[in-house]
Amino acid sequence: MNLTGKVVVAQGGGPTHVINQSLVGAVLESRKFPQVTKVYGAVNGIEGLVNEEFMDLTQETTHNLEQVAMTPSSALLSTRIKPDDAYCKEIFKVLRAHDVRYFFYIGGNDSSDTVRIVNENAQRANYDFRAIHIPKTIDNDLVLNDHTPGYGSAARFVAQAFMGVNLDNRAFGGVYIGVVMGRHAGFLTAAASLAKKYPDDGPHLVYVPERAFDMDKFLQDVKEVYDKYGRCVIAVSEGVQDENGVAIATRLVEQVEKDAHGNVHLGGGALGELLANTIKEKLNISRVRSDTFGYLQRSFMGCVSDVDLHEAREVGEKAAQFALWKDVDGSVTIQRTGNYSVDYQLRQLHEISAKTKYMPDEFLNTRGNNVTDAFITYARPLIGSGFQDAYRLRAPRVPKILVK
Amino acid sequence: MNLTGKVVVAQGGGPTHVINQSLVGAVLESRKFPQVTKVYGAVNGIEGLVNEEFMDLTQETTHNLEQVAMTPSSALLSTRIKPDDAYCKEIFKVLRAHDVRYFFYIGGNDSSDTVRIVNENAQRANYDFRAIHIPKTIDNDLVLNDHTPGYGSAARFVAQAFMGVNLDNRAFGGVYIGVVMGRHAGFLTAAASLAKKYPDDGPHLVYVPERAFDMDKFLQDVKEVYDKYGRCVIAVSEGVQDENGVAIATRLVEQVEKDAHGNVHLGGGALGELLANTIKEKLNISRVRSDTFGYLQRSFMGCVSDVDLHEAREVGEKAAQFALWKDVDGSVTIQRTGNYSVDYQLRQLHEISAKTKYMPDEFLNTRGNNVTDAFITYARPLIGSGFQDAYRLRAPRVPKILVK
Repeated sequence: MNLTGKVVVAQGGGPTHVINQSLVGAVLESRKFPQVTKVYGAVNGIEGLVNEEFMDLTQETTHNLEQVAMTPSSALLSTRIKPDDAYCKEIFKVLRAHDVRYFFYIGGNDSSDTVRIVNENAQRANYDFRAIHIPKTIDNDLVLNDHTPGYGSAARFVAQAFMGVNLDNRAFGGVYIGVVMGRHAGFLTAAASLAKKYPDDGPHLVYVPERAFDMDKFLQDVKEVYDKYGRCVIAVSEGVQDENGVAIATRLVEQVEKDAHGNVHLGGGALGELLANTIKEKLNISRVRSDTFGYLQRSFMGCVSDVDLHEAREVGEKAAQFALWKDVDGSVTIQRTGNYSVDYQLRQLHEISAKTKYMPDEFLNTRGNNVTDAFITYARPLIGSGFQDAYRLRAPRVPKILVK
Repeated sequence: MNLTGKVVVAQGGGPTHVINQSLVGAVLESRKFPQVTKVYGAVNGIEGLVNEEFMDLTQETTHNLEQVAMTPSSALLSTRIKPDDAYCKEIFKVLRAHDVRYFFYIGGNDSSDTVRIVNENAQRANYDFRAIHIPKTIDNDLVLNDHTPGYGSAARFVAQAFMGVNLDNRAFGGVYIGVVMGRHAGFLTAAASLAKKYPDDGPHLVYVPERAFDMDKFLQDVKEVYDKYGRCVIAVSEGVQDENGVAIATRLVEQVEKDAHGNVHLGGGALGELLANTIKEKLNISRVRSDTFGYLQRSFMGCVSDVDLHEAREVGEKAAQFALWKDVDGSVTIQRTGNYSVDYQLRQLHEISAKTKYMPDEFLNTRGNNVTDAFITYARPLIGSGFQDAYRLRAPRVPKILVK
């Protein structure tokens, strides 16, 4: 089949460092096919789709597209709207009016669900239509993917941040807590461990949502490390939960703010401050500091994994190839085929959408307070090359002269 | 004169990205002089000096020193102890016992004061002794210096962070507040503006301690920007103060924690949350986010200004040269001699110590809510080369088909 018509590309959800690589991959590849009459970009994700806010990316220069590809955050802007069936019907109406035959939506599992529903609308209307979900999320929580585009660069940021704060903490002693993004999956927090080098390097403790967080156990862990090293560096997911699945952070927030997806907003430093104050009080340690990494970890300019960047480009290209060469719908997934190499497979949309991948047991230690070597082996290639190493002085100590 | 004896180098105060460049510059240069019998490093700053905790850096390899130079945070570790006269007397006793004739102390204005007092002890004892203060502070607040080593790299971090959050904020709209280090001087916060490119790029508002912070005026500023762009990115110093000189952040902190210098600990996200909540309530804007950059801005691995790195190396080298060639005491200062070039002058210790440099009026606009072009011209060279540029799509909009 040689379905003639327009392509629409859109970006949804939280931006990543490399989301524009996927956009540009899909756009440039689509522009090669003679049956593609135009390549549009929807502005503000699905909001742009219902409001007919399109840019004609066929009239964008290749040079500028390549520059945009190197720029973090969604060049087509984004939206947090979670479409219901009526909304998806509107989307389909607009796509049909513009003779759009190929729809590529870059996003997480919410976005893949949107692609699925829009595609079902097209099928019910007997409208020839190809819809492909292009994966993207710093959370690394899409099922059937070895990992997701965006994760590697965010993980690189987290690793570099912990390399630095470990050195800072070593200079002064005390306890440092870094709160990392991740509501349900701990992959990004776990990345804090990727740059450890010396045996006493932090993070010494890592807490993720996959393991119930218990404050007494936490204090015991911190005390143990602090007694050993005179210092302690901790990485903790914003979404850590108690044994009943209640996020520790939400206990604190008086006014819980939710977005349209029902996601509680977990930012603002409350969790870090709670943990820091508890350590100060219960363990009687005076120097306890916490940082909440916040938006920096998904947008920091110039912190990009080359592996992530190339894969993000390729999933965009593959989406266009699957739709235009193979004439199929689905979600592009990343499969690991070697150490380190990947390939891309198309999976059914319903297999991906609205599901969450968690850290497997083998990536977490039995005490639930750290990652394993299996995680390091898994994640290290994803943060890319050119990672700078931290060095220490190793000169001998000088004998004392004055008796003290 | 050809004063034979040992060299001691120490590092004090908060670490920077390039503080080890100064250490290695002083060590390698000192090792060239035949009258230098050994080069020691004091571990944990002046604490190491009174406790005789020395490393023999004459027995450190050049390769490892070069690797350490590229590693952020104090390789000799640090201390927050503020020495009184009795403490400085102890330091001098130890230095004399080890036949130390050259003392190089890398730090901010507190550290230069320590160098001055130790040196006065030596003079009173008629002990031949050269003492040099090597400048370092991300706050950029040392008088008689065009700027200070450490500032350029921290400023680069802040600029890259704001480039990213500006793109993130543009994708979603709403208000973003980034809280930047700086108790008294606003140089680091002002650096948020260095990477602005398009006319509507953030930060749209910049608040520094040099201008009294008024909440009503602040809300009016935010409303104005938000009404114009549908979004607003704000950079604010942790140390912003009201018209009576009371830090806005300290109003909030129930349990004010102070270090030995009487510096109030301003971290933890309270200021950002206060401002965010006030905007939500008073301006009725739903999406308001704040991040407190915290320790990342002074230690993030791999974010270094090449200009800063080279200058930090040179002030260390110059310290050794001033002491060993010229046989003088003082504080090494950076003077700007061109756009962009610098030279180094030695100033008297008492001219530098315990003084603070503030942003000059010409760097701040009359409304006190932003920087001027004069600041950009001043600071842009300091963040170094290879700064990545952000790009936008500029494809034309597509005419709408469905009447909405």
